[in-house]
Amino acid sequence: MPASPADKLAIDTLRALALDAVANAKEGHPGAPVGMSPMAYVLWTRIMRYNPEDPGWPNRDRFILSAGHASMLIYGALHLAGYDVSMDDLKHFRQWGSHTAGHPEYGHTPGIETTTGPLGQGFANAVGFALAEAHLAARYNRPGHALIDHYTYGICSDGDLMEGISHEAASFAGHLGLGKLIMLYDDNDISLDGPTEWTFTDDTTKRFESYGWHVQRVEDGNTGIDAIETAVKAAQAETGKPSLIRVRTIIGYGLPKQGTADVHGKAPSLDDVLVAKKSYGYPNLDPFWMSDDAVKMWRDAGARGAPLQSRWKKSLDAYRAAFPDLAAELDGIFTRKAPANLAAALPAYDPSAKPVATRVASGATINALEPLVPATIGGSADLRGSNDTVFKASGFIDRGKFGERNINFGVREHAMVAICNGLSLSGMRSYCATFLIFSDYCKNAIRLSSLMNQPVVFVFTHDSIGLGTDGPTHQPIEQLAGLRAIPGMHVIRPADANETTVAWRVALERTDGPTLLALSRQNVPILAANPDGVRRGGYVVADADGTPELLLIATGSEVHLAIEARKKLAEQGVRARAVSLPCWEIFAAQDQSYRDSVLPPTLRARVGIEAASGFGWERWVGLDGATVTLARFGASAPGEIVMRELGFSVENVVATALNLLGRGNGSGQATKDAGVAGSSTPQAKPTPSASGHS
Amino acid sequence: MPASPADKLAIDTLRALALDAVANAKEGHPGAPVGMSPMAYVLWTRIMRYNPEDPGWPNRDRFILSAGHASMLIYGALHLAGYDVSMDDLKHFRQWGSHTAGHPEYGHTPGIETTTGPLGQGFANAVGFALAEAHLAARYNRPGHALIDHYTYGICSDGDLMEGISHEAASFAGHLGLGKLIMLYDDNDISLDGPTEWTFTDDTTKRFESYGWHVQRVEDGNTGIDAIETAVKAAQAETGKPSLIRVRTIIGYGLPKQGTADVHGKAPSLDDVLVAKKSYGYPNLDPFWMSDDAVKMWRDAGARGAPLQSRWKKSLDAYRAAFPDLAAELDGIFTRKAPANLAAALPAYDPSAKPVATRVASGATINALEPLVPATIGGSADLRGSNDTVFKASGFIDRGKFGERNINFGVREHAMVAICNGLSLSGMRSYCATFLIFSDYCKNAIRLSSLMNQPVVFVFTHDSIGLGTDGPTHQPIEQLAGLRAIPGMHVIRPADANETTVAWRVALERTDGPTLLALSRQNVPILAANPDGVRRGGYVVADADGTPELLLIATGSEVHLAIEARKKLAEQGVRARAVSLPCWEIFAAQDQSYRDSVLPPTLRARVGIEAASGFGWERWVGLDGATVTLARFGASAPGEIVMRELGFSVENVVATALNLLGRGNGSGQATKDAGVAGSSTPQAKPTPSASGHS
Repeated sequence: MPASPADKLAIDTLRALALDAVANAKEGHPGAPVGMSPMAYVLWTRIMRYNPEDPGWPNRDRFILSAGHASMLIYGALHLAGYDVSMDDLKHFRQWGSHTAGHPEYGHTPGIETTTGPLGQGFANAVGFALAEAHLAARYNRPGHALIDHYTYGICSDGDLMEGISHEAASFAGHLGLGKLIMLYDDNDISLDGPTEWTFTDDTTKRFESYGWHVQRVEDGNTGIDAIETAVKAAQAETGKPSLIRVRTIIGYGLPKQGTADVHGKAPSLDDVLVAKKSYGYPNLDPFWMSDDAVKMWRDAGARGAPLQSRWKKSLDAYRAAFPDLAAELDGIFTRKAPANLAAALPAYDPSAKPVATRVASGATINALEPLVPATIGGSADLRGSNDTVFKASGFIDRGKFGERNINFGVREHAMVAICNGLSLSGMRSYCATFLIFSDYCKNAIRLSSLMNQPVVFVFTHDSIGLGTDGPTHQPIEQLAGLRAIPGMHVIRPADANETTVAWRVALERTDGPTLLALSRQNVPILAANPDGVRRGGYVVADADGTPELLLIATGSEVHLAIEARKKLAEQGVRARAVSLPCWEIFAAQDQSYRDSVLPPTLRARVGIEAASGFGWERWVGLDGATVTLARFGASAPGEIVMRELGFSVENVVATALNLLGRGNGSGQATKDAGVAGSSTPQAKPTPSASGHS
Repeated sequence: MPASPADKLAIDTLRALALDAVANAKEGHPGAPVGMSPMAYVLWTRIMRYNPEDPGWPNRDRFILSAGHASMLIYGALHLAGYDVSMDDLKHFRQWGSHTAGHPEYGHTPGIETTTGPLGQGFANAVGFALAEAHLAARYNRPGHALIDHYTYGICSDGDLMEGISHEAASFAGHLGLGKLIMLYDDNDISLDGPTEWTFTDDTTKRFESYGWHVQRVEDGNTGIDAIETAVKAAQAETGKPSLIRVRTIIGYGLPKQGTADVHGKAPSLDDVLVAKKSYGYPNLDPFWMSDDAVKMWRDAGARGAPLQSRWKKSLDAYRAAFPDLAAELDGIFTRKAPANLAAALPAYDPSAKPVATRVASGATINALEPLVPATIGGSADLRGSNDTVFKASGFIDRGKFGERNINFGVREHAMVAICNGLSLSGMRSYCATFLIFSDYCKNAIRLSSLMNQPVVFVFTHDSIGLGTDGPTHQPIEQLAGLRAIPGMHVIRPADANETTVAWRVALERTDGPTLLALSRQNVPILAANPDGVRRGGYVVADADGTPELLLIATGSEVHLAIEARKKLAEQGVRARAVSLPCWEIFAAQDQSYRDSVLPPTLRARVGIEAASGFGWERWVGLDGATVTLARFGASAPGEIVMRELGFSVENVVATALNLLGRGNGSGQATKDAGVAGSSTPQAKPTPSASGHS
């Protein structure tokens, strides 16, 4: 049944706003919002519970526009439903300083739950939102007190479903049976380059059924809004499976080139907009014109939210009276309260204790700290033993066990991080784990943690060639550089168990951005605790006797090389200072006097030591220093042998330092990848004739 | 039907070798090779055409062990079949300098077709191998001359199929109907952490059928080798679909803890190995003992290859006689001959011509160069228009059109790069394209291009905030840093159309590693051509009048800022030199005298200018320089506005330079992320109250 004239006008109003805004901006994606408008109309006016006056209401339904390029859909809907998104904002779509960025950005616009645009991220975020709801409901609801009870809705596109992350997230959600996750798929046969038949011919229904999803299809997504509503209600009724609703639409509905790639990513001309509006029978062709009746329909729907939230607030009050402790925990989660008093709970290690891997120290710290931070939830991508990330006081999340705090993410790194973003955006202090090398598999989602200022914690172990025999495919080299370069990211590479405990504390006390812990597989000696030094990102770990004439700057497992080399150099009359620099970003943010006290600015004889790419190390050693780093891939052999063979020995650090001071015998092998200090020596791996072609 | 005693002994010999080698190395994965041994035996002795004496025979069947952690399976099989993998190599599994690394490495061991270990990569590589076969067959075979006619076989694991890249690659292969791709799935219900039922409960048959694959199931994969053989032959008979054969196995078959995660990634004790061998009824329990009869069975199978290759060589001779030009092209592909005489074909641009985006110049160059490089094949991840990567003289690869040279990869960046690795390993000069930001989606596969020394070309456009209104989700910041830090990678960011043409030439002339071209969306002015300067990675693009007192070092679109700033500074009596540094890695590899001639070592007043993270720039500007770079994410607005607002203006470069020289008025905003020069200013994005929780 086609929409009533009033419904149709309300839908076309959203369409017209999208077309006007994109045409006005002269850039953007007109086709998707126009095609998706009926879905949005049904969700916003007939289905979702939300309060435009308080976009942060904890029990609101979530809406995720995974196809972020359709941003005008959500900006238009937010404006119409009564959020603080003004007509002026719509007229400044994609302009400097506006609230209406090219892709929806969390924190820039009220009502935007997550930043989307990179395809597939929103889909996986939505799984995280739905998991957070299931977790909080299982953990905090009590009989008669269904405090947490909402849905997660989303709209995704062909592009989202082509991305591998959609497989990972859908498989995970299907396994858990996240019944309150309802994704509408804008099934329009067109991607940016052309028809999907050119390359994307999956049977999507069958694919999602194979993951354990409930799949429906709405044939007329352009006008059949009752069918959309019916399907969403059927999806709600299916409580044991996530739902995918394939809504068949025409991209750019009404535009002269509707149903083709020409309306995907190119702004329409003003003439084309007129054609579309005329095809809708739109009452007025002026740009940004809206019918009062249509606006009223949207606003009335939005206005239903405030009383809903009031009722919920009463439930919260009743809950608070009945369960004050649980309510206080929930408050902490809703407001993302920074945990306090963590220091007292930190395990401490005596320097005389036997060496311990920082991943193991991390495992002990997690277990000590998690009771103090109820919002913590996390897990590993099938490496929970190796990453040492299990919270022993809890079981594992599964069907019927959503209140647990450990997650088995499976070998799904990319979805894992995007799910953690969804959890974090729901107030959880999410963490996730894999080998540092596999940050490569989830880099975009890690970046989005930082872009969204989310304090997700990445527990990335096996942080160097020191991991040993797994070899170059598993040994990170360039990963630290790429991760440190993410704006707002804190990468901490602790040198020992004591630095690790403080690193976790620093990570959990941070509330405005992510922290990545790079942890060793191998055991490392215990240093005297220096919490303040770690909290400042770097400190003098072993000073020279007298004014230093040389700086040995290191991170992680290599700090011990610096300390040992300092000693050897002292025996030869060289006054070297060893500096531990676990977090470059935090150290760089210290005041200049502290930084200068650790790294005296005029002292230019500096050796940087890190079992990773030297890229970026000139920030500390400059043009006159040297590094013991890596300008090649690693090798498969026991870790201590790989370390030694590739230059990470006290002898080589000492020789490099002496050469730098002009007192060497030339035996050191400073890493030659600095443009000024030497020539590049990437791994020259000859292809044996056996593998050549003949 | 269970295997005959002779077959069983031959299989158990492979199992025993794997157990002995892992136990001997004290690290590694025993469970998978033991479970997979029957599959490998069937493939190596009953199915595959290969010649151990010439692992490079172009028409050999390919075997890809996507589950690279099962490396002892392939090392054992290669040894038994007669490849140059010795018993001594097996005894040095995972040791320094051995040919038997922890994960199979291309170029280290004869018979290893591709480096695997990061899960899912091999699966997608196999799609690339199969595509290369289909392409070469369609393009070069002639009636009566089926010169290219082989299969691509692989074994994959639960982990491979959990990774998102498996979705992308399987969907792509299913769409194309790559009928000669046959993947055996080691379906053993166990991943590293535990039973797959903990998190991986897809209906894998249904999933692959949804992609258009032919799926079979072998119930007894531990002893039922006839069933495996029958399934493989049925897969061969299905010529219009790729095949997945689910082979049900028991991980760690025979070990005391068979069928559990305990035998996945932990070396067995010597006692456990004895238990396993006894359970097989193995005739001799000595480590590395092999039955002569079993070895003979394997070697006889291997020995069938030489006559097969001889016959093929005669076919090639006949082909060469009939089609000398085609044969010469094929020879060039088989031997990966570096293309010659590209320079003459390069488009040239006059500095008086109007500005052009480097992505557009790249498109023109591709079309000029590709006729000269028959091995070139490539495409884009659904951005072929934006990336400007279409080879206009060719159509698009599809079913029945495998001879074309353009590929529609779909929105599948990760699989795209891994498929390009498979194409490259088959001799093709593959290239692929997306926006630079989405290098984040395929980073691990890019790294493997370099680890395998494959000259894949990455055409990554929209290379900075200059792309404009799409906003921060689409604007790369830290990507150049992470990519430049990959050992062996050449990242070229050309400043104009002329630098772009040379960049392509440099990329295609390279045969031992990948090249990434970072190209602008926006138009940039044309510079006077300086091919030698680009080929050396950096050069003086506009020198000071007299001895320079300041260096302005830039890449890409920012070179023009450096040139303009140089002019303005000259007007103020400052002798500045502008340097274009399109490829840091190539420049760093020049001899010191050339480097010093461009960047005089004692001249320390240096300003680096790049619309990207400043991370790594101290390599050029040291501790005493300054940069105009980015310590924050971008913003959504027209490109020229974002550029100007974030400091990329001539005025700001001039002011920064004058401040550095101590002659400024303090108006410049040098980027403050260098630890020594200033404090870190990551993007402080306040969360508006509207998005907070209440």
